[in-house]
Amino acid sequence: MVQYVGTANLIRLVDSIGVEPFIAGLANYIEADFRRWDSFEKSARLASHSADGVIELMPVSDGDLYGFKYVNGHPGNTQSGLQTVTAFGMMSDVVTGYPRFLSEMTITTALRTAATSALAAKHLARRDAATMAVIGLGAQSEFQALAFKALLGIRALRVFDIDPAATEKFRANIAGHGFEVVAASSTEEAVLGADIISTITADKLYATILSDNMIGAGIHINAVGGDCAGKTELQRDILLRADTFVEFPKQTRIEGEIQQMPSDYPVTELWRVIAGHVSGRWSDRQVTIFDSVGFAIEDFSALRFLVDKVQDTDFFIDIDLLAQPADPQNLFGLLSAPASSGPVSACAAE
Amino acid sequence: MVQYVGTANLIRLVDSIGVEPFIAGLANYIEADFRRWDSFEKSARLASHSADGVIELMPVSDGDLYGFKYVNGHPGNTQSGLQTVTAFGMMSDVVTGYPRFLSEMTITTALRTAATSALAAKHLARRDAATMAVIGLGAQSEFQALAFKALLGIRALRVFDIDPAATEKFRANIAGHGFEVVAASSTEEAVLGADIISTITADKLYATILSDNMIGAGIHINAVGGDCAGKTELQRDILLRADTFVEFPKQTRIEGEIQQMPSDYPVTELWRVIAGHVSGRWSDRQVTIFDSVGFAIEDFSALRFLVDKVQDTDFFIDIDLLAQPADPQNLFGLLSAPASSGPVSACAAE
Repeated sequence: MVQYVGTANLIRLVDSIGVEPFIAGLANYIEADFRRWDSFEKSARLASHSADGVIELMPVSDGDLYGFKYVNGHPGNTQSGLQTVTAFGMMSDVVTGYPRFLSEMTITTALRTAATSALAAKHLARRDAATMAVIGLGAQSEFQALAFKALLGIRALRVFDIDPAATEKFRANIAGHGFEVVAASSTEEAVLGADIISTITADKLYATILSDNMIGAGIHINAVGGDCAGKTELQRDILLRADTFVEFPKQTRIEGEIQQMPSDYPVTELWRVIAGHVSGRWSDRQVTIFDSVGFAIEDFSALRFLVDKVQDTDFFIDIDLLAQPADPQNLFGLLSAPASSGPVSACAAE
Repeated sequence: MVQYVGTANLIRLVDSIGVEPFIAGLANYIEADFRRWDSFEKSARLASHSADGVIELMPVSDGDLYGFKYVNGHPGNTQSGLQTVTAFGMMSDVVTGYPRFLSEMTITTALRTAATSALAAKHLARRDAATMAVIGLGAQSEFQALAFKALLGIRALRVFDIDPAATEKFRANIAGHGFEVVAASSTEEAVLGADIISTITADKLYATILSDNMIGAGIHINAVGGDCAGKTELQRDILLRADTFVEFPKQTRIEGEIQQMPSDYPVTELWRVIAGHVSGRWSDRQVTIFDSVGFAIEDFSALRFLVDKVQDTDFFIDIDLLAQPADPQNLFGLLSAPASSGPVSACAAE
């Protein structure tokens, strides 16, 4: 049988652990997997593009476990009340090829994206960072806020969204979580005095959410919203005076902020910082950028985390995704035999 | 919600329709999709190889629907009572990217492989073909026999397997289905007088199940067992005097019998025969080969067939694979808010 964690059980699991401890635990799994980055078989995503969006399969394997995520991106979905991004994932045993675990990953992706952002900031932001600006208060914003509180102790937020309703939604969701929230009337106002700036807008096409003059010395920029070809948030000049950290360069050069730069533009792989191979921040005046686009290893870590967390709980159900004939050569025996046949028909009851 | 057809429901569905009518219906869907072959976006499989086997993702889209199959191939599995091949599949809407349908595909793959073989033979074998030799009586054998009965009216079988237990299993499973079965003591004996020869062995490495001297004029060979790099069943000389028909040449040249031949060895795409663009058989003395390796469009057809067949039945259940927040921008609202928060917490009950 395959263990299945649907949306309802995933929500129960997160609620039982608490969002912040859940994100902190997930970040530990991501950190552990980033430390052994070279042990993974990595592939580019397998993408199917259409006029309305993209459907992607993102596989990764560490030699023992094979995970993949199905994820779509359809910007027009929100107009019909659907989500831009939905996802699910699966974990299999490499030695048998058997699927073992199937999970919703829409909420899980939001959690792992936030966990990865905060993990990157833990290694890249100034140690005394206390205030974060959040630009864009859509579906990812609350997860980011809680992740930065869980991993870096950030409690002071300066937020802005062009849509006042989004700001209200954010305020309501974040209430009771121990933040001081200042709602700014512009991005310029929001970034004033911030040590970390998270850009999480949904702008398609090349946008300039942050311009060079807004970025003071020592800032860490968590650039989450630019995550597909043609979608960026940062003015190019910011990149030129900052140090940029990425997940998987081959993918980020297509999808990230650095798609604005030449193909040999120097970047540092985040995993090398986390593994201690190179230093991320070496000065309090350095501007650092985590050019986040999301990578399959983060989903693998999330699936690993979920597998471990649901064992010995009732937060999953078993589903019969795999046929299990008593004799593997007798798949046909699973079907009912006609009335005249012999004892093999007993297999049909299995 | 996503419609889910597990193994138990798939078996109930097949039993309710009957194996032969099920295969015949499935073959109609495959035939319809082969006729519009050019309308599909086709990709090579995305394969992850390990010492023990391979895990593959096989996506395909017709612009309205996107389907993919997860399938593994682990020859050593049978030694521990597991199956060599397991599979599941999913169908999504291209316009939204939303998954709509998830199904077991282990049994379904066996059914669609047999349906495709019989469909190919319907277009390639002599019209008066009445006797089929089946070499290799493993998990696929009964499905092939029933498919050829359903589509071509074949009732006379001459069968052989190196394992007498496999022969007994085949005889027992096939009993009551209206066949005359002759169990031969060798491949040479089995092919005597056969109009169609199906090779369905599980031999790894280059094997010679059929040698040139066994193949008389007018024979159609349904070569199913050679389906990965290094795995073939036919002596090369047979290929040289036969006309070979394939699903997707790029894939078959790697995985099929024609991996023994130069990369420009002439083959005919089966879909062109089915669509009426070219003729398959033009002489009663011609030897034809369907070099079957399986292609994603056949799985797409199978998923389409299943989707249509289970509507308005109880052969599926709904599963909550996708998060459905009332406000797509408020994914966080699905999680329980802390006690002090406002009305947004009501969303957590959805």
